[in-house]
This record gives sequence, C-alpha cells and structure tokens, in this order.
Amino acid sequence: MPDHIDPPHATGPASETVKAHSEPNSLVFHAGWFCPFVQRVWLALEEKGIPYEYKEVNPYKKEAHFLKINPEGLVPALEHENKALYESLVLLKYLDDAFPEKQLKPTDPHEAGLVRLALQQISNVVVPAFYRYKEEGAAFVKSLQDLHTDWFRSGATWARGDTIGWVDLALAPWVVRFDLLKKHRDFKVEDVGTEFQAWAERIVDRPSVKATTSLPDDYEKVYRRYFEDTAESEVAKATRKGEWLK
Amino acid sequence: MPDHIDPPHATGPASETVKAHSEPNSLVFHAGWFCPFVQRVWLALEEKGIPYEYKEVNPYKKEAHFLKINPEGLVPALEHENKALYESLVLLKYLDDAFPEKQLKPTDPHEAGLVRLALQQISNVVVPAFYRYKEEGAAFVKSLQDLHTDWFRSGATWARGDTIGWVDLALAPWVVRFDLLKKHRDFKVEDVGTEFQAWAERIVDRPSVKATTSLPDDYEKVYRRYFEDTAESEVAKATRKGEWLK
Ligand SMILES: N[C@@H](CCC(=O)N[C@@H](CS)C(=O)NCC(=O)O)C(=O)O
Ligand SMILES: N[C@@H](CCC(=O)N[C@@H](CS)C(=O)NCC(=O)O)C(=O)O
Repeated sequence: MPDHIDPPHATGPASETVKAHSEPNSLVFHAGWFCPFVQRVWLALEEKGIPYEYKEVNPYKKEAHFLKINPEGLVPALEHENKALYESLVLLKYLDDAFPEKQLKPTDPHEAGLVRLALQQISNVVVPAFYRYKEEGAAFVKSLQDLHTDWFRSGATWARGDTIGWVDLALAPWVVRFDLLKKHRDFKVEDVGTEFQAWAERIVDRPSVKATTSLPDDYEKVYRRYFEDTAESEVAKATRKGEWLK
Repeated sequence: MPDHIDPPHATGPASETVKAHSEPNSLVFHAGWFCPFVQRVWLALEEKGIPYEYKEVNPYKKEAHFLKINPEGLVPALEHENKALYESLVLLKYLDDAFPEKQLKPTDPHEAGLVRLALQQISNVVVPAFYRYKEEGAAFVKSLQDLHTDWFRSGATWARGDTIGWVDLALAPWVVRFDLLKKHRDFKVEDVGTEFQAWAERIVDRPSVKATTSLPDDYEKVYRRYFEDTAESEVAKATRKGEWLK
C-alpha cells in the first residue's frame, strides 16, 4: 500500500474549503482529500452547513492516534464532542440525527425505505462494480441502470434534484470520478440512460460538490497506478480485489 | 434450490402467532417461518405491538405475484397500504419510521451510530461467518467477540437488555439457530465470552423470540441437508457460497 499520497493535500476548489475549515471545532472531520467515501460525508457537512474542522489523514500510514479514532484505520471518521464514529453511510445518518436541520433523509417512511434499499445497492453492487470496471464494464452500467429505476420509482423529489438526499450524496463522489473511467476505460455516461445522465450533469454542478472536488489532474495522479496496471504485485492484487484507493 | 420447504408452515409457539395474525390487515408480512431474516422483522412487529397479517411464502418458488412485491424474490417483504418494501434491516428501520411508538433505535445520535456500525458488522461479517462455520469456526466466534466489544462500548442500555433494540433483533434469529451449530459443529457459546453468553440466554427467553420460534426439530429438518453436506452439487455449491437457506 502506498504510504504517501501525491499530492498530499486537496487542490483547486477543495483546497479553499479545507482552508476555510482549519480552526479547531468540537466536530473534527478526519478526511483524505482523494477518497470518495470521505467526499460523501464532506458533502453532507457542506449541504447541511455544519461547522467543522477538516483534518487531512493519510489512512495508509495507520498512525496510532488515528487508530484510536477508527480501529479499522479508514477515512472518513468523525470526532464530535470527543466521541468517534466512522463508515461513510453511518456518518451520513449520524449527521441527520445530530444536526436535525435540513434533513437529507426523506420524511415519508416508504420513501426513506426506498432510499435505504438504494444505499444497500450502491454499497453492495454499484461501488464494487466501479472498481471492477475493466473486467465487467457492462455490470457497472447495469448497476446504475437498476439503481436508477428503483430510485425514480419512488417519485421522491430528491431524485429529481429539488431536494438533495442521501442517495445523491452517496453516489456523487463516483460521478466526480467518472472522468477516470472515461479516459482509461470505455465508460460513457450516456449508456446508462438520458435521465441518469441529466442527474449526473446536475450533481457535479452542485456547489457542495464543486467545493469538495480537487483538480482533475490530481485524481488522475493518485489513481494512475490503479488504472495503468503498472503497479507492483501487491498493489495489483489489491486492485483486483477492488481495495486500492477505494 | 429446494422448491418445497418441509414442514411448509410454522410449528410450535410460532404457529400460534401465525394463527393470531391470519385476518386481513393493511400491513401484510410476507414471511417464511424458517428464515432468520424474516424472524428479525417478525420480532420487531411483535415487540412494537403492530397489527399485521402473516402470509407464508415459499421464496424458492419465485411466484409471479410475489416477484411484484419483491423483484429479488426474497422473504421478508412488507406491503403496507399497498406499498412494498423488503430487506430485513430496511424493514426494521421502516417500522420505526412508520410506527414511531416504542422506538428500537437509540435516541442518542452517537449510540444510534454505534448501533449502525454493529448492524454493518452483523451483515458483513457475523452472518456470512455463521454459514461458513465449517470452514472457519474460529472466525465466527471472533466476529461475535468483536461485535460484542463495540456493542458494549457504547454503554447503551439496549445492550444490557433493559431496552430492546435493532442489534438485539438483528442477531437474535441466529442465536435461536445456535443449536444447529452446537449439534452439527463444535460451536460453544461459552467460547464467545460470559457476557455474550448471558445476553444469548436472555434473548431466547424473550416472549417475542419464543412467539416467533418453531419447534427445534423442524429447523433441524430444514437445515439438515445444509449441515450434512449430503446434498447434490447445486446445493453444495450454494452452501459453499453461503447462499442456501440464509
Ligand atoms: N466502508 C468505508 C470505506 C472507506 C475507505 O475504504 N477509505 C479508504 C480511502 S478511500 C481508506 O481509508 N483506506 C485505507 C486502507 O485501506 O488502509 C466507508 O464507507 O467509509
Ligand atoms: N438480505 C436479505 C436476505 C433474505 C434471504 O436471504 N431470504 C431467504 C430465505 S432465509 C430467501 O428468501 N431465499 C430465496 C432465494 O434465495 O431464492 C434480507 O436481509 O432480508
């Protein structure tokens, strides 16, 4: 595993956001600028307008003080009033519970259930398929089509972009990284469908998404080894298992 | 896959509960008496005292009318005021949203976060390890020990049995099925630890658990093929993948 990330800090618009959140706060956001799971939580913090302190962590270093916060050693993690939590989807839900204004969860119980089904699908199917794009590109496209069908089936406004919600935020970071699949693989967002494409274009224009996104070249740099398959055997193995730079 | 379940209906105490819920209701519980995922939701219905109609479904038959309710064709599924939902953990959360009395979710946001972490661990680690007990018995014991540590770390009363919660209900059905691992494998609940053992003994005595449990011999009958490994190749393959009679 790479024990340094290059560049080590956010760049472009995201670096401004980091700077604006450098003061100590009772909510500490342990983050890695390059990490899509981190970006989910970052988006929620920005959308809900919650004050926080941003701390850059290199999770591959597994430093002792960070393992005390998250024994798994993964970013994202939150410390809030000295109590720690981790796992991006757990954190999205935590933020709605701890900061009840601007709920990202639908108020209607049935719609909330459909959203939870969509989140399970994103975790279990869509995200793993992203990392196996090379082997099963069609499976990734299909996973987005299936998600899209269920998602729109609910008739919930959050799917149409009026009200942003958990599913939008859980998926957006991979949309930000679609360019990598376009450049290094044969992915075309049009193949998913026109409604999905419209949503994908809308979501990357959202101020919260822009404010948490670094320069495209820097994602490129960090993910290059992954996409070029030039890595030494350890990285290649992790890549095949979909574990590298998730 | 077996297209009939023998016996086809709940037996013992669970059959009484089924009988008491045979009248039409706006909440229809599509269930399989033998299924631990079903029992999670059944427990929540009983604990919360929600009126419901019990419908026995053989999910292996994949009948058209049931596929309209759950396109995955799995039990449990709920139809409530003609809207369908499925996936046991999604349903546990739905019931708390739709029937807010007697919340199974902790009110404290941090405790709720720890509960969600525990649920992820149960889904991703504990339950798969149960089905691979033969290959990796030690992994199953360890998964329960790890879970237990996090769970008690929260200091939440629900872990001590004062207030029943999502984690108790999500795990209880496999405790009900520990006898199978004791009889066919070398599992001993003592190996997990004395606190866990005490919880496990308390939970199977809970009225909701008793009321949703069939006769031990009938679980035995349904799971026998699984444990005896005498099955023909299809079942054996599914068994290895942990997919049979989950
Ligand atoms: N399931 C976790 C995944 C988080 C994750 O994989 N983070 C990566 C960076 S993107 C990490 O910290 N990796 C460190 C490592 O694998 O050692 C979540 O949803 O938060
Ligand atoms: N992830 C599902 C699992 C449900 C499940 O596996 N149910 C089994 C019975 S215990 C089933 O319906 N199997 C039918 C099949 O596999 O075709 C949940 O949590 O509800």
